Parts: sequence; structure tokens; C-alpha cells
Amino acid sequence: VASSQAPTTRTPKGEHTRQTIQRAALALFSKRGYRDTTLRDIARRARTSVGLTYRYFPSKEAIVLAVYEDLAQAVEAKAVELPSGTLGARFEAILEMKLSMLAPHREAFGALVGPALDPASEVSVAGHKSTSVRARMLRVFENVVEGATDAPSTVPRDDLVAALYVIHLVVLLAWTHDRHKGAPRVRELLADIHSALDASGPLFALPPVREGLKRITAFVRAMLF
Amino acid sequence: VASSQAPTTRTPKGEHTRQTIQRAALALFSKRGYRDTTLRDIARRARTSVGLTYRYFPSKEAIVLAVYEDLAQAVEAKAVELPSGTLGARFEAILEMKLSMLAPHREAFGALVGPALDPASEVSVAGHKSTSVRARMLRVFENVVEGATDAPSTVPRDDLVAALYVIHLVVLLAWTHDRHKGAPRVRELLADIHSALDASGPLFALPPVREGLKRITAFVRAMLF
Repeated sequence: VASSQAPTTRTPKGEHTRQTIQRAALALFSKRGYRDTTLRDIARRARTSVGLTYRYFPSKEAIVLAVYEDLAQAVEAKAVELPSGTLGARFEAILEMKLSMLAPHREAFGALVGPALDPASEVSVAGHKSTSVRARMLRVFENVVEGATDAPSTVPRDDLVAALYVIHLVVLLAWTHDRHKGAPRVRELLADIHSALDASGPLFALPPVREGLKRITAFVRAMLF
Repeated sequence: VASSQAPTTRTPKGEHTRQTIQRAALALFSKRGYRDTTLRDIARRARTSVGLTYRYFPSKEAIVLAVYEDLAQAVEAKAVELPSGTLGARFEAILEMKLSMLAPHREAFGALVGPALDPASEVSVAGHKSTSVRARMLRVFENVVEGATDAPSTVPRDDLVAALYVIHLVVLLAWTHDRHKGAPRVRELLADIHSALDASGPLFALPPVREGLKRITAFVRAMLF
């Protein structure tokens, strides 16, 4: 049963058009910024009519939210296939995957970081329209923890997941600010986080660390979920 | 000796005009957003001529950078007067002060968070035009650590300062996303950070924690300084 919102997207041809529109949007964001791009510009670039584009996406914002959603979905699929390993190795692997998926659209995501972090924006990553994207990324980190060979038993799973989610947000923000090709500093940071997580087992048993994680979780859940 | 850039700002009358222009800009940012506000709009709202406004600030971006600078300067002045106390108490006190200074312009800073975190923006908080602002905030945290009764001797001062600087950025980002009046969740988070810092003394002696702090410092210095 096709959804009433975008009937054609469930067919291979529909999916192809949907992807073409998303790519056209990202290309234009990178060229002239998010704000200065219109749905009409995107349709022209995608060589589709405004009417057809509108059938897939009722607004420019809807395209961005679909980009978030598709990305989170792809990362979630990868997370399921992650080989078992340490928490640090699995966290690094999934972040590397996410950054590799973002890399071809580096400029476009650079242009989106402003709107994404603007609490008043329709495409805010903390807004109610991206609730399902955040839920998906949370599941990714639940998966990362589940399959870890060394997940600490001394802290609640949810607290660890929330902490990984926050670290992931900081890494993404840093990535958009790393001007060097391949984001070498962020790659180094990821390797450091990997080592830190591998070495942190005994720390998780310490009361102030456990208490700190509990507070972070409460805060993250209150703000984002 | 007056600077050639803004000769009149060094007199009390000049300073008054400068502040009036900044306040007018913030009022307009909160009303219609940063992007849709022009220098002409700001001049009209400040009841000054465009020519006079231009003598103080050659662009809208220059006004925002001046707002950052004045804020950092005010926080720095407060940091010097902080009573001695624990690291946690001093960190919380200085962040509370910064948030109190931001509070009257909550909506305006909400409108600025997008441009401030856009790496391509002129008013990027990570850009080269705000280097002096970051240096000033770093001095604030140096001061916070210097006067702390319990600053750990086991980690280099610079590592601790960089970590506090990063926590401060995360708190500010969270503040712009806390929709409730008085930002109660962020206030709670600050109280939690206070307790966490007070309890963290023994943690700083642990090798993985010291190594982690060293890595954070290297990353923050490479990205922002």
C-alpha cells in the first residue's frame, strides 16, 4: 500500500527520482547555501518539474529531513552488520561509516550546520520534526553497545548509550569545522576516543563517573527525546 | 590615542552610541533573524544615520563580533573578581554570570546560533575573526583554575583549561536549545557539572583520564587556536 504523501517513491523509478532530487538539493546547498536555495531551483537542477518535485517533497525542509532520515537509516543498517569487538572499536567503526557517507557532500553539510543547530529552524536536529532520526541514531548506539565484547556491566546500558550519542554529536560538529580534506584531525580524534573507551572500563566502576553518566543521560533525554 | 577605525567610540557619547547600535541589532535579530536584518534596518532602529552607524561598524558582521568581544570582556572582568572556591564552584559561577548576561538577549542569541556555528560564516565562533574572543574566554578559564582551592596537581593546567572551555561551549549550545524561561535544565546541568568537578579530583590522577585530557587539549588547540 503506497502512502498518500509520496505515492511514487515506493517504486524503483520513484526512489530514483527521490534520490535525484535529494542530490540536486545538496549540490545547490553547497553552491549557494541553504537559505538561498528554493524548491524551484532544486527542481530545475534535478531536471524534474516543480509539480513532480512537490509530490515527493512538499518543501525544501522536507528534503533536508529526508536526507537526515536516509542517512540515519543507512547507518542503522551498517550498525547491525558491525563485527563484534570492543566498545571503542565499534564506536569508531560506526562513526567512520557515518563520516564516509557524509564526505561526498561535505560542502553541503557545511552549509546545513547553521540551520541544523538553529533551534528555531524547521530542520533543527533537536526539533520535533527530526525525532525519528534521533531515535534511529540512539538505536545505532544501543546496537554498538549490545555487540561490544567489553561493555561495562557497572553502568546502565542507557547511560552509556546517551554518552556515546553526545560524543557522536560533538564529533559531527567538529567534522563540519575541520577544513582539511579527509578531516584528518577528526579522524585522529576518533582514534583517540577509541583508545579512551578501550581504557575506560575500570573508570565506569567509579561512583563519580557513574553519577556523571546518569546526569548526562537525564539531560540528553530531557533535551532531545 | 583613538583608533582610526572607530574614533568616536572612545568617548562616553561614542560608547553610548556603540551600545545603542548593538542593542538595536540584537532586537532585530530576535524579531526577524540574523540573515534578514540589514545594517540599514539596524541604523533605523537605533535612530542613527547609516553613515554614523557605518563609522562604528563597517558591517552587520562587525556588530556581531563586537557583541562577542564585549561579552567576553565582561566575563573576563567578572572572572578576576571571583571569590576563591572549588573548581566546580568557580566554573559554575562564571557560567552562571555568562548566561545571565546572555539572558536579556535570549531570542537574539537563538537567532545567532546558526551563523555562529556555520564554519563558512563571517561570524563563526570558530573563525579567524573571533580569535581574540576565544583567547579571552581561554583566559577566563585559566583564571577559574588559578583561583581554585582544589585544582588537581596531576594534570597540566592547560589540559584542564581546554576541557573547561569545551564544556562551556557545550553548555552554551544546550542553553540556546533550552526553551524554558530561565533555562532550568541548563541550570541543573551546571549544578551537576559543579558536583562532578568537585568529585573528580581523584579521577585526574588516573592515567587514562590524564591521557584523555591531553588529547582533548591537542584537538581543541588545533581546531580553535
